[in-house]
Amino acid sequence: MDALEKVFEQIDQSWDDEVKFLQQLGRFPSTLGNETATQRFLANKFREMSLETDEFIPDVKKLSSLPGFSAPEWSYDGRPIVVGKLPTKGPKQGKSLILQGHIDVVSPEPMRLWDYDPWGSTIEGDRMYGRGLCDMKSGVAAMIYAVKAIQDAGIELGADVLLETVYEEECTGNGALATLQRGYVADGGLIPEPFGPTALKAQVGVIWMRVRVTGAGSHVNIANQSVNAIEKSYILIDALKKYREYINYTKPKHEAFKDVDHPLNVNIGIIKSGDWASTVPADCMFEVRIGLYPDQDPQEIKDEVKAWLLEAAAQDPWLKEVQPEITFYGFHAHGVNLEENLEVYSYLDAAHHKVYDSEMKYLATTATTDVRFYNLFYNIPMTCYGPTGGDMHGANEWVDLTSVREVTKVYAAFILDWCGIRK
Amino acid sequence: MDALEKVFEQIDQSWDDEVKFLQQLGRFPSTLGNETATQRFLANKFREMSLETDEFIPDVKKLSSLPGFSAPEWSYDGRPIVVGKLPTKGPKQGKSLILQGHIDVVSPEPMRLWDYDPWGSTIEGDRMYGRGLCDMKSGVAAMIYAVKAIQDAGIELGADVLLETVYEEECTGNGALATLQRGYVADGGLIPEPFGPTALKAQVGVIWMRVRVTGAGSHVNIANQSVNAIEKSYILIDALKKYREYINYTKPKHEAFKDVDHPLNVNIGIIKSGDWASTVPADCMFEVRIGLYPDQDPQEIKDEVKAWLLEAAAQDPWLKEVQPEITFYGFHAHGVNLEENLEVYSYLDAAHHKVYDSEMKYLATTATTDVRFYNLFYNIPMTCYGPTGGDMHGANEWVDLTSVREVTKVYAAFILDWCGIRK
Repeated sequence: MDALEKVFEQIDQSWDDEVKFLQQLGRFPSTLGNETATQRFLANKFREMSLETDEFIPDVKKLSSLPGFSAPEWSYDGRPIVVGKLPTKGPKQGKSLILQGHIDVVSPEPMRLWDYDPWGSTIEGDRMYGRGLCDMKSGVAAMIYAVKAIQDAGIELGADVLLETVYEEECTGNGALATLQRGYVADGGLIPEPFGPTALKAQVGVIWMRVRVTGAGSHVNIANQSVNAIEKSYILIDALKKYREYINYTKPKHEAFKDVDHPLNVNIGIIKSGDWASTVPADCMFEVRIGLYPDQDPQEIKDEVKAWLLEAAAQDPWLKEVQPEITFYGFHAHGVNLEENLEVYSYLDAAHHKVYDSEMKYLATTATTDVRFYNLFYNIPMTCYGPTGGDMHGANEWVDLTSVREVTKVYAAFILDWCGIRK
Repeated sequence: MDALEKVFEQIDQSWDDEVKFLQQLGRFPSTLGNETATQRFLANKFREMSLETDEFIPDVKKLSSLPGFSAPEWSYDGRPIVVGKLPTKGPKQGKSLILQGHIDVVSPEPMRLWDYDPWGSTIEGDRMYGRGLCDMKSGVAAMIYAVKAIQDAGIELGADVLLETVYEEECTGNGALATLQRGYVADGGLIPEPFGPTALKAQVGVIWMRVRVTGAGSHVNIANQSVNAIEKSYILIDALKKYREYINYTKPKHEAFKDVDHPLNVNIGIIKSGDWASTVPADCMFEVRIGLYPDQDPQEIKDEVKAWLLEAAAQDPWLKEVQPEITFYGFHAHGVNLEENLEVYSYLDAAHHKVYDSEMKYLATTATTDVRFYNLFYNIPMTCYGPTGGDMHGANEWVDLTSVREVTKVYAAFILDWCGIRK
């Protein structure tokens, strides 16, 4: 039995463990700011695996001068990033590797739409349901159990492997950036984002915008003389819908997204205004996520969309005088068009074929992932490849368990090949 | 010096006290559910004035079978209604009187628009600023100090006076209804709502509606295949704007409101959706206040606006299938067109002329007040007349202090005449 067979056998043997581990991971409600318990749990797991484990707090001051930094509106106190290093024992014989996954998840609200406990990790048939199980705790479990299977099979690798669990992939990417700032680099990397058995070839950039509209509030008995901030906001939301049409269908498409019907989403994700039905709301706040192409600068897009909104505001007698306040926070993320012959692709393709008969597909995603930092700013070839699932960010998010097992094997095969087996 | 002169002199002498009392009253943040401290303060005031003071909790079960009841979504536990009775000493010689004011106030949010502490009762020139000082703590101070001046002048009245401080005028009117349910009735009444030295002749009815729109939430990378509940909500908000045009300009106006340009406001007062810019919001909730005419039944208008919205929903492929959930709570308030020769008018007009040279004006208000219960369901002639101010429900709400002093005098003159001076 060769090394790969032994490792695959190990993965099959520990499959029940891996499922239980994933269930545990899914039961942590690790939304923004609430990742600490999950990270402690993972750090303990890494220590159990005898990895050199580093828990550290991002230094926002140091991060803020790095390219790709996104301004947060919150503190990093008490929120560790975790890196577990499996050092090679002796001179480097292969290529070192980063396996990175994010454990932050978005809110499960509105809860009423769920048929399962979002923190219950319910298994039904081949699916496990829960917030973050697809995006991307299943990938985290797969990458950890791939390394564990290699260890348990008694195989020594020819180069270091770093297992990294980060947060804020969903809003800034500063968790990933913090690992790089701390010096965790390697010859290549994978992120098991749940795109299925598919290699990422391009991703859009993302910015977050906040718009505050001020009306003139008053008692409803003079509501027709007042200015309702909710109604005024819709002028700007309409303008954003037009902007969405413009950037997707009027402007030329980026080559990497030529087969994607609607690459650049402009999503009104939040709106909040008022606290009394009989009061004319004097302000309204809404937040928007805006996509951009790999060759665009986030700052230029911020300027463009701001100008677009102010132009729309100028058409309205009230908004012309009382201009909306337009600010940006969170994602200031560049898009990435990965190199055609990224070094990891051939290894990943080979590993893919150890598990699947079908060809490995390539994906241009209309979302962002942490790979941008590694490829754009640290010259580390890195792509995504992960489990299959659905309803990410929605109700009844699920992951296909068979795909998790298969991805665990693909990752193990990749590691053996990329890092090499110590001779 | 006759009785009225003595009372007016008393009001002038105690004016500084009245201003201080109003300042204290304004410093209680008596928003919905937070009225208890204010009510205890007022009950103590009534006891200091040797009134027979009753603090009682509304019995929602008993109220719910009464006409004019509005369904609350909250409890009345620990939230007293206060009635202070100044009983006449001997056989009734005049007419008994209810003086009623509400001490609940709407939220001061958004605070950022205030130039004054909303709970600071700041005096600048002739104005006092703060949430609820106009609507309607100044009126409450005026009615109390009118009675107090009569007491302090040593005058015995010929009939009982009830001083009542209630809450939920701003959302249900159940405070007023509770006083009636408990048996507090009289030959007539006044509410010092801040309409200025103006008698109320008509008011609209009001209903509150809540609309929940369900979209199909998901990760933003498939946002264009998802259904954004915020964007879908605007289809219904547009329909409500059309409904507003229809009821104000297409339907015939009620006679009492023929001189009012836009009597029936339809106000989108609250909207809430989403918690993440990069998630397509799966639901959106908004609340609306809708006005109706005195001859209309609130239930009929509820049915009408619901049908209107469902008709608009039917034009949209998504909303047709996933219909909005339309419910009603709070205000189920009839409009009132007061009798031409309401008994209180002639007395009020006479009292008005004791203080003002100008004619007393009459007002058809596009808001609701508690007078509806007394006139419609208890045959108690009651109108409003009160201080002058501005920015009710808005930032920098204020009351004109001179008007408060004048209204205190008008009320005192009214009481002396209506209740009579014991011979």
